[in-house]
Amino acid sequence: MIDPRRDCETYLDIARENDMVITHILETHRNEDYVTGSAELQALTGARILHGDLDFGYGATITDGREIELGSIVLRAISTPGHTPESMCYGIVDREGGLETVGAFTGDTLLVGGVGRTDLLGPENIEEMSAMQYDSIFGRLLPLGDGVVIFPAHGAGSVCGSNIASREDSTIGLEKAQNPWLQVGGKEEFIALKRNEMLERPYYFDRMEEVNLKGQPLLGRLPVAPPVRAEDVWRSYGDLAIVDVRSPTSYAASHIPGSISLPLEILPHYGGWIVPYDRPVLLVTDGQEQLAPSIRALVRTGYDDIWGHLQGGMVAWHAATLPTSSFPVWSASAIGERKDGDLFYLDIRMGKEWNEVRAPDAHHIFVGHLPSRIDEVPGDRDIVILCSTGMRGSLAASILKARGRSPINLLGGLTGWMRAGLPISYISM
Amino acid sequence: MIDPRRDCETYLDIARENDMVITHILETHRNEDYVTGSAELQALTGARILHGDLDFGYGATITDGREIELGSIVLRAISTPGHTPESMCYGIVDREGGLETVGAFTGDTLLVGGVGRTDLLGPENIEEMSAMQYDSIFGRLLPLGDGVVIFPAHGAGSVCGSNIASREDSTIGLEKAQNPWLQVGGKEEFIALKRNEMLERPYYFDRMEEVNLKGQPLLGRLPVAPPVRAEDVWRSYGDLAIVDVRSPTSYAASHIPGSISLPLEILPHYGGWIVPYDRPVLLVTDGQEQLAPSIRALVRTGYDDIWGHLQGGMVAWHAATLPTSSFPVWSASAIGERKDGDLFYLDIRMGKEWNEVRAPDAHHIFVGHLPSRIDEVPGDRDIVILCSTGMRGSLAASILKARGRSPINLLGGLTGWMRAGLPISYISM
Amino acid sequence: MIDPRRDCETYLDIARENDMVITHILETHRNEDYVTGSAELQALTGARILHGDLDFGYGATITDGREIELGSIVLRAISTPGHTPESMCYGIVDREGGLETVGAFTGDTLLVGGVGRTDLLGPENIEEMSAMQYDSIFGRLLPLGDGVVIFPAHGAGSVCGSNIASREDSTIGLEKAQNPWLQVGGKEEFIALKRNEMLERPYYFDRMEEVNLKGQPLLGRLPVAPPVRAEDVWRSYGDLAIVDVRSPTSYAASHIPGSISLPLEILPHYGGWIVPYDRPVLLVTDGQEQLAPSIRALVRTGYDDIWGHLQGGMVAWHAATLPTSSFPVWSASAIGERKDGDLFYLDIRMGKEWNEVRAPDAHHIFVGHLPSRIDEVPGDRDIVILCSTGMRGSLAASILKARGRSPINLLGGLTGWMRAGLPISYISM
Amino acid sequence: MIDPRRDCETYLDIARENDMVITHILETHRNEDYVTGSAELQALTGARILHGDLDFGYGATITDGREIELGSIVLRAISTPGHTPESMCYGIVDREGGLETVGAFTGDTLLVGGVGRTDLLGPENIEEMSAMQYDSIFGRLLPLGDGVVIFPAHGAGSVCGSNIASREDSTIGLEKAQNPWLQVGGKEEFIALKRNEMLERPYYFDRMEEVNLKGQPLLGRLPVAPPVRAEDVWRSYGDLAIVDVRSPTSYAASHIPGSISLPLEILPHYGGWIVPYDRPVLLVTDGQEQLAPSIRALVRTGYDDIWGHLQGGMVAWHAATLPTSSFPVWSASAIGERKDGDLFYLDIRMGKEWNEVRAPDAHHIFVGHLPSRIDEVPGDRDIVILCSTGMRGSLAASILKARGRSPINLLGGLTGWMRAGLPISYISM
Repeated sequence: MIDPRRDCETYLDIARENDMVITHILETHRNEDYVTGSAELQALTGARILHGDLDFGYGATITDGREIELGSIVLRAISTPGHTPESMCYGIVDREGGLETVGAFTGDTLLVGGVGRTDLLGPENIEEMSAMQYDSIFGRLLPLGDGVVIFPAHGAGSVCGSNIASREDSTIGLEKAQNPWLQVGGKEEFIALKRNEMLERPYYFDRMEEVNLKGQPLLGRLPVAPPVRAEDVWRSYGDLAIVDVRSPTSYAASHIPGSISLPLEILPHYGGWIVPYDRPVLLVTDGQEQLAPSIRALVRTGYDDIWGHLQGGMVAWHAATLPTSSFPVWSASAIGERKDGDLFYLDIRMGKEWNEVRAPDAHHIFVGHLPSRIDEVPGDRDIVILCSTGMRGSLAASILKARGRSPINLLGGLTGWMRAGLPISYISM
Repeated sequence: MIDPRRDCETYLDIARENDMVITHILETHRNEDYVTGSAELQALTGARILHGDLDFGYGATITDGREIELGSIVLRAISTPGHTPESMCYGIVDREGGLETVGAFTGDTLLVGGVGRTDLLGPENIEEMSAMQYDSIFGRLLPLGDGVVIFPAHGAGSVCGSNIASREDSTIGLEKAQNPWLQVGGKEEFIALKRNEMLERPYYFDRMEEVNLKGQPLLGRLPVAPPVRAEDVWRSYGDLAIVDVRSPTSYAASHIPGSISLPLEILPHYGGWIVPYDRPVLLVTDGQEQLAPSIRALVRTGYDDIWGHLQGGMVAWHAATLPTSSFPVWSASAIGERKDGDLFYLDIRMGKEWNEVRAPDAHHIFVGHLPSRIDEVPGDRDIVILCSTGMRGSLAASILKARGRSPINLLGGLTGWMRAGLPISYISM
Repeated sequence: MIDPRRDCETYLDIARENDMVITHILETHRNEDYVTGSAELQALTGARILHGDLDFGYGATITDGREIELGSIVLRAISTPGHTPESMCYGIVDREGGLETVGAFTGDTLLVGGVGRTDLLGPENIEEMSAMQYDSIFGRLLPLGDGVVIFPAHGAGSVCGSNIASREDSTIGLEKAQNPWLQVGGKEEFIALKRNEMLERPYYFDRMEEVNLKGQPLLGRLPVAPPVRAEDVWRSYGDLAIVDVRSPTSYAASHIPGSISLPLEILPHYGGWIVPYDRPVLLVTDGQEQLAPSIRALVRTGYDDIWGHLQGGMVAWHAATLPTSSFPVWSASAIGERKDGDLFYLDIRMGKEWNEVRAPDAHHIFVGHLPSRIDEVPGDRDIVILCSTGMRGSLAASILKARGRSPINLLGGLTGWMRAGLPISYISM
Repeated sequence: MIDPRRDCETYLDIARENDMVITHILETHRNEDYVTGSAELQALTGARILHGDLDFGYGATITDGREIELGSIVLRAISTPGHTPESMCYGIVDREGGLETVGAFTGDTLLVGGVGRTDLLGPENIEEMSAMQYDSIFGRLLPLGDGVVIFPAHGAGSVCGSNIASREDSTIGLEKAQNPWLQVGGKEEFIALKRNEMLERPYYFDRMEEVNLKGQPLLGRLPVAPPVRAEDVWRSYGDLAIVDVRSPTSYAASHIPGSISLPLEILPHYGGWIVPYDRPVLLVTDGQEQLAPSIRALVRTGYDDIWGHLQGGMVAWHAATLPTSSFPVWSASAIGERKDGDLFYLDIRMGKEWNEVRAPDAHHIFVGHLPSRIDEVPGDRDIVILCSTGMRGSLAASILKARGRSPINLLGGLTGWMRAGLPISYISM
């Protein structure tokens, strides 16, 4: 297994179906965006954990060039520092067909359409890390050959690299042809681009790194998250982190005041920005089907203390006549109907997205930074929230509403904005 | 199989797991509330269909007393007219243990806590049908013995009987002790109670009876309901029946104007009241998980022409800047805060429910009758909708909104109403 | 939950689907035929464990008459000693319908068609325990009313009672009419019948009782049972308990010498008779589908140390040219073709079965006693093994073959024997 | 969809989960080894079928260079005759990343480690077809670029090409480096190699081609294959094709005389060689889990008339004392113990396999040709059957046994043979 997740029963199932045994667990790097399942999987299988040259507190170091034989397959460790100092890739040789490298697990070093971020050791180390990454990619990975299939650690939507393509299959040859980062004139240009990449650094990265270094707590099973009656939730209200995973429309119509809107689609990537780690989590769902995927997403980002979920959902909350809150959702077409000048446009997308295209009159605060920059948002005007679809907009609206603002979530986001013929600016990079 | 449903693959799976063959399909009566799967299952298994003495257009008649042997089990037909003229029950003897009747499939004749309605042939026949049902229950079923386990055709929530208990396991003895209908002083009292039962008769009953009599169209597979882009939905807007199965909160915040709110929880029982049979259905969902159960519910009530579902859901609709509509959801606690007298309280529960407990100031129109009695609802005031939880309230709100009224769905319903200390009247039956 | 099993994730799934919380775990008695999951389920849910008046080492005592409220449901403890001294049943009242008892969890006290065995405290206590059981059944359970539905702890095939019916639904009234044990003339006759019941006592009962009393080890997850290569199995051969769960035909054609034949159908009930508890288990399967159910069956009877399964099955074992063994399977029709008098007929069914019908010339040793009575089986003749179908016959054949005998498994068993017109004796009880 | 299978519900599920619609069905060529699901999938989705320039009796022709746009993806048709005259490949461009070809569906033209066979139009056309294929591969596919990922129509084990690798991921660059067929000196050498390829041509190819040309019968649902009692099977015995999918050991110990041994592992690839198309199929299984995959495999190769399966399996057959048959399974180690010269060694692998390595004393008849060459197998000696593992050996043994020979299935096959130190010859190609 390469970089296993914590809820690792699926690996056991796959192994069983194929009558295989899991003997080794390889890590491509100290992960920062999820709790790795290496310790968990080791506890279940006795497999050996190997990783790059850093004290992970568990497992052993695998050095450049070392090989692991698995039947006709040979995995060869390739040291590729840059994303982290100890990053490793693993080349694949299939001796059934020949001795050429046929594939490579490229971790966070080379992604489809992107490369791993190099700012994790802080801005003062970006140049050094970027230089190492350039050498790793151009000196170690690209020479493997154009025909080599790559298996990166992340796909589209990850916060560990930028501009990752939605396509999953790629090769060294395709990346050489299409990956924007590989079209640079040389190492200096690569470093310069990296210096200006300006990615957001989620707060939970620190916690993940810490957890992954000191050894992840064993999960055993997924938390149960039992139903809790509305009255009992209310009694513990002040001590909870209330995470509402319903759709943006459902949340807008009625929600528990102070709850955090994290529709299932964005929970895995944005939960860690905003949900505190020191409070038990209470989930609010529309139906029981949303429960299990929510628990998985939370556990993978280190939230093990899931107290329960609201029994009966918001209907039960209303039946208990407990306090609720709401805000409007709009289409962009509604903007034109209310051009009275008293709307505040707030774009809450990532800096990168803002730097590509934007509404000219909008103010920009990335949703992850909203709590700390709340003072920039006026309290006496309606706030129209802009994102790409309205999912993250719902999160932003929940943050604003809890802090006394009057948010309006623009469903359909910038797509609708443009469709409605509202003004837009494309920024040259 | 007794009274199979149309999407009958589950019966085949059960048979396969147990290495059994389905040889007979028994109907307890001409069903009026769903499309039976007898023809479907027969096409797949070659099993023989048997039913009471009425020309169903398919299958053959089984007469009182006839027996079917299935290994050590014997099923014995018991003629029990009342719910319909040809209603049959089927007693179960297990010769492994003895010759006593051990169980009975009681169809819509005897339910847990209730009995089948007797008004299906119209008000002019209620007395005659009720008399027959009294004889069937007291003369044929109760003598089977207190220890006989009953397997009725319906559980709680069905519209084929009233007051059905939520418990599923029962016996002749328990019904004798607890079923309100079996506590009557005699046949006359039974008939009198029946005469005053006043159940709503869903419009789709006529269609189900017609379909079930002339032979159900073969389904083959469940309809696919492919995704349809927002723009394409809009192009066909006028020809569609748009069924929105999202939660009441999600619907309230934003929906397609003119769409029908049928949250999954009530779709099986209330869809047939309101969704026209002569238009292709377009589904609106919050996520793909809601698709399959919606299709099942529609197909079981005879909606085979499911055109598709809105691709991308309401987010895509907003992104296309197409027209939307919304209305508020309230808790009962909000009522007190707006005691300015300009609210119209509309109770949309069934007549039976209204007759048990109600808000004194409310006006009553059963949700299924709203379209034809819409003139009773004022257009110049806010309409607060009352039901038990707010599910049917969402349906009522969608009907009102489409007809130019200003609905407010009271989530939490009468439970919240009482919790908020608002006035309530209990009606003596 | 009443009497949960150890691999208890299914209870959590059911609770989640129904938005319910598991608050109490009730035990009907100290179980002797499986490892209870009470501690496991408590660890996952925090539910409270309650049982009869015996020091279980965990949980608390519930006394006769105590009630537990669960919504509209009330469970009432009924002390019913007999099967064990502390046996409890739990009556069910559904206040939605009335105050009558509507059902009862009858544990091992009253089964469908049978009653629990009363010999668990040894032959010297049978009379006393049987007298208590008579009083429990006739004095406490039968008065609950004929219409009461019963939910016993065991169905057909269990070793905790005799003659349990294959039907699952029953009532007090039906048991009064059909259960042979309830047709007795009085307590004396009941005790006399019990004295002659002569049930086999599986060796693993002692272990289960011990485990269940001192608190079951927490399982966490099901063991993985990873694949082990034939050569590695051979290296550890002498230390393993090799359990072969393939079909009787597959086992007969070729198996690992000394392995125990336990086809999946009989593994749950017969494994504990013969598989030693002090050796790691190695499973032999025909395909990966047999793996998970085998692991479940073993874990439920206390075999937690499952070392693995033979990778590649018997094909791989043959490819490694390791020793194999085999024996013939016959039909009864083959008997007639070889009437040369040199066959030894060995009936390995339970004493109860032997006492009902048998082949006149057969010798009887219950399969669970074969290892200790092996000297009664001649080594110089072919041994034709008789059971009901040939499943237990395969187990017996594996025991005999491992001890130097020449077994022939009669597939089709006594059914085929009679079909072939071979001589048979019915014994009057 | 490219080259869909007949039981196509899985495509609908995938489309639903991803909120996608299936708009086109592309065929890479007229398939000869399975019944394509194009018509089936079209009936369910209304998608358009496109294929190369040959009258398929359904769908339309797509010509070289034509493009189909699917969001950001463009598929481009590439005419690649050789395997069949109308073979098409489909290049993939992902405009999100650039205009380079990123992947290609290579049908039966280019496989991982192999190329499609070119003998389907008969030996007289091999040279012409091979020349075309050479041009298609070297002139059209290889120029797409080393980094292009290939998605062939077959993986290891297929009979549509030879030496297909077990690895699934590959690229143009890797095939150029490793595929033996691409290492040739030029077109002449390629044709010469093709002329000597000597692949077996399954009898069912003709039927598949015919079925696929005239349009496949619609399946609707998978056949039910209900249980049939042993006695009823026996009554129809003479009219049935009895297919036994149990393991080689289970079959060897006891089977229905005349039944065909096709363990699940080889049923998809070898069923069509031997099971007649004009008789209803009766399945024999070890447990119900084997039923569904057997039905799928049969339906995909055109066996729609599946009469049922033997209820209760071989145990029930024995209980009915119906005729059975058996033969021994051996390990290679047993050979040495019986060196009395009276064994006939029969190698039943494919010609290609026989041409690589063999036991010197063995006689070779490919298992698919056994029925027509049965006279070469002596009736007065024990026949030791050699294959690679013993799966196909079981099929060969069933054919021999039904024709009065005395087979012995060598489980573990040639692997065991070599492990046992028996003589072996490697043939230079």
